[in-house]
Amino acid sequence: MTVEQTTTRADRAAPAAARQHTLRERNLQLVARAIFDAPVPLSRADVAGATGLTRATVSTLVDALVAARLVAELPPVAAQRAGRPGVPLAPAGRSVVGLGLEVNVDYLGVRVMDLTGAVVAQSVLEGSFHDSDPSEVLGRLGAIARDVVSGVVADGMVVAGAHLALPGLVDARTGRLEVAPNLGWSSLDPVPLLGLDALGRDPLGTDRPDPGGRPQVTVEVANEAKLAALAELAGDVPPSFLYVSGDVGIGAAIVVDRRLFLGERGWTGEIGHVVVDPAGPRCSCGAYGCLEQYAGKEAVLRAAGLAMDASVAALLDALRLDAVGTDAGADADGPRAAIRRAGRALGSALADFVNLVGVDTVVLGGLFTDLLPWLRDDVVAVLSERVLAAPFAELDVRGAGAGDHAALSGGAREVLREVLAHPAAWV
Amino acid sequence: MTVEQTTTRADRAAPAAARQHTLRERNLQLVARAIFDAPVPLSRADVAGATGLTRATVSTLVDALVAARLVAELPPVAAQRAGRPGVPLAPAGRSVVGLGLEVNVDYLGVRVMDLTGAVVAQSVLEGSFHDSDPSEVLGRLGAIARDVVSGVVADGMVVAGAHLALPGLVDARTGRLEVAPNLGWSSLDPVPLLGLDALGRDPLGTDRPDPGGRPQVTVEVANEAKLAALAELAGDVPPSFLYVSGDVGIGAAIVVDRRLFLGERGWTGEIGHVVVDPAGPRCSCGAYGCLEQYAGKEAVLRAAGLAMDASVAALLDALRLDAVGTDAGADADGPRAAIRRAGRALGSALADFVNLVGVDTVVLGGLFTDLLPWLRDDVVAVLSERVLAAPFAELDVRGAGAGDHAALSGGAREVLREVLAHPAAWV
Repeated sequence: MTVEQTTTRADRAAPAAARQHTLRERNLQLVARAIFDAPVPLSRADVAGATGLTRATVSTLVDALVAARLVAELPPVAAQRAGRPGVPLAPAGRSVVGLGLEVNVDYLGVRVMDLTGAVVAQSVLEGSFHDSDPSEVLGRLGAIARDVVSGVVADGMVVAGAHLALPGLVDARTGRLEVAPNLGWSSLDPVPLLGLDALGRDPLGTDRPDPGGRPQVTVEVANEAKLAALAELAGDVPPSFLYVSGDVGIGAAIVVDRRLFLGERGWTGEIGHVVVDPAGPRCSCGAYGCLEQYAGKEAVLRAAGLAMDASVAALLDALRLDAVGTDAGADADGPRAAIRRAGRALGSALADFVNLVGVDTVVLGGLFTDLLPWLRDDVVAVLSERVLAAPFAELDVRGAGAGDHAALSGGAREVLREVLAHPAAWV
Repeated sequence: MTVEQTTTRADRAAPAAARQHTLRERNLQLVARAIFDAPVPLSRADVAGATGLTRATVSTLVDALVAARLVAELPPVAAQRAGRPGVPLAPAGRSVVGLGLEVNVDYLGVRVMDLTGAVVAQSVLEGSFHDSDPSEVLGRLGAIARDVVSGVVADGMVVAGAHLALPGLVDARTGRLEVAPNLGWSSLDPVPLLGLDALGRDPLGTDRPDPGGRPQVTVEVANEAKLAALAELAGDVPPSFLYVSGDVGIGAAIVVDRRLFLGERGWTGEIGHVVVDPAGPRCSCGAYGCLEQYAGKEAVLRAAGLAMDASVAALLDALRLDAVGTDAGADADGPRAAIRRAGRALGSALADFVNLVGVDTVVLGGLFTDLLPWLRDDVVAVLSERVLAAPFAELDVRGAGAGDHAALSGGAREVLREVLAHPAAWV
């Protein structure tokens, strides 16, 4: 509804039903949010207190959310005062679930999360998908997803939707992948290649008519770093932060007030190609001296004298064993010198990011989470030198908290956030 | 109101008045927006058609907007069909006005704009405010503003508020100036220093009691580039763009869907301190190789062999007379070589800006508007090389359209935008 109605007599008759419908939707949102955001389970009376709605209204709406399996009633606890014991309300586990899917350079993954934030199923396949065939790889991911989904559906769960994470430029308006340099993919519409049409129908087979606009089960596509950033929201982060994910490529996301800032088409945070030194090495993108040439996984391994397919654990071992120590200068060889160059380059690109976007907290994910103890001092030193607001802002550089394959969690969470933003579609 | 109300019987009695009040406010907004956004004057019937409201409702609301002097009734035009002629409605001129104030390195300015977008009064004082005394300068600006305001008030206009533009880091939450390096100012609250308390009362002296929450006349403070960017919205720009203002310092703003993106505290767009070359000259900020050292006004004049206080016109003359021509290499001397180095540096910093923020249109303001014919090729060449999405996006580099002292217009416009966003406070 974009046109609001007055309450003059002439206008009143027609829109009354619509107005009531809208109010019910908003109140359902309010009640759902109160229950999902509460640190401890609330009773119906607590929800009334938290929302300002009457107890009668809250009871009706809670009953609807329980019937829709979005909210669960826990066993009653004795009230501290006389009267009926309160029934604690909590997010429903193993009922409505979200699906995270991902293709990355070295794995394919599927993760299913429920409304309590628990991972109820997942499957991750390690591999090398450098310069791979998109139909073959996405078809394989789709097959894994079908297996995982049929398991959770057999257990009585309903899949509300899916988000597919890809390490490249995804058009946020259309879901089209323009280019994923490290996969060697370009110009394709990934969703049909998953072969997941079956997910487009109600996986429970309860195909009821849908007057209320129950959302279809659809697959949305997003950049990997964007979804990984959203996974951080489950933990203890400030409402606004920059998220930078290090791997072979380096991606980033801008989160402001707990929502992604997406610019025009979602092509934000391409920090891997920020200029560190115009006299630097040529990048896979064609330009010179991009951050990826200093702090990307392959650049660090090469500079550290390790094999291109060495693991992060091997890099960490090499760092511990490097005799040069922390005094390694910029021209020294070996793992510690390599990591210090990476740290200074990362600090320089992050300073540009903070100066341009005006957000003071930087969360380092992917490879950088493990490397943080080795990177932090150089990153912080360069940030303090270069961020104009550094004297007035509390620059906060921290490791990511969402664990491995964070984009899978972020994708699944985003599906469930959409469910809770429009609970009326589920009741 | 953060808590929504249901329409159950128990809730209904108390909030009915509040609900009706809110609806009236929203409908006033709708009607005002229809009249102000229309390319040609609308009749009441046109407004009803455009908003979906009844004619009776529209008439009542239009009458209120006319009485509040936000909307003017133009002379009736004969209807094409039989019946009473329609009365065209338009933004009211010379009634409610906004005040733009600015301190910049080489001028102080005051500009008054009315709801039609016309400048109804202004005063600009050229000078040099490098390393100046903030109390003295802001006091002088305040005195100019009082003169200008008493003139417009004597002509029957009402000043709705003011925005003060400063070339530095302004905390968008508090209006405090943290630092303005080129003024030599730091850590101060500029508004009291203006001595404009008299503007805090109704300048018409009609001090009526104010149950409806009529906005107080207040002075808000913002970064100069942010307000200059908003001035572009009066012209033909896409809804999202990056605005970069070149002067001694180089500031920028991010506009998405016709609103400023302000990050956490408004400290966005500090492109003047983005890394162009870590081996470059030391900047006033303490870091090395910042964009300002290549494309700031003083850097360009110095590299062109001109005096530090040379005008832009003198620089343009020198460019036309430079015999080296457009083949000037990076190591050549003279104006053309200087401008080419500036163009490539600006392209590099803009590429970082576009890669990080994901907005494809760049509007070049201040000094860069006049220099655009000399800068454009190098800026576009570097952007095409370095912007990852360049093959899929239409990069658009254009000059600003808002004219001189654009931040004054942007500040005045922003006051009036706020009036139209809450017209109920004026009726």
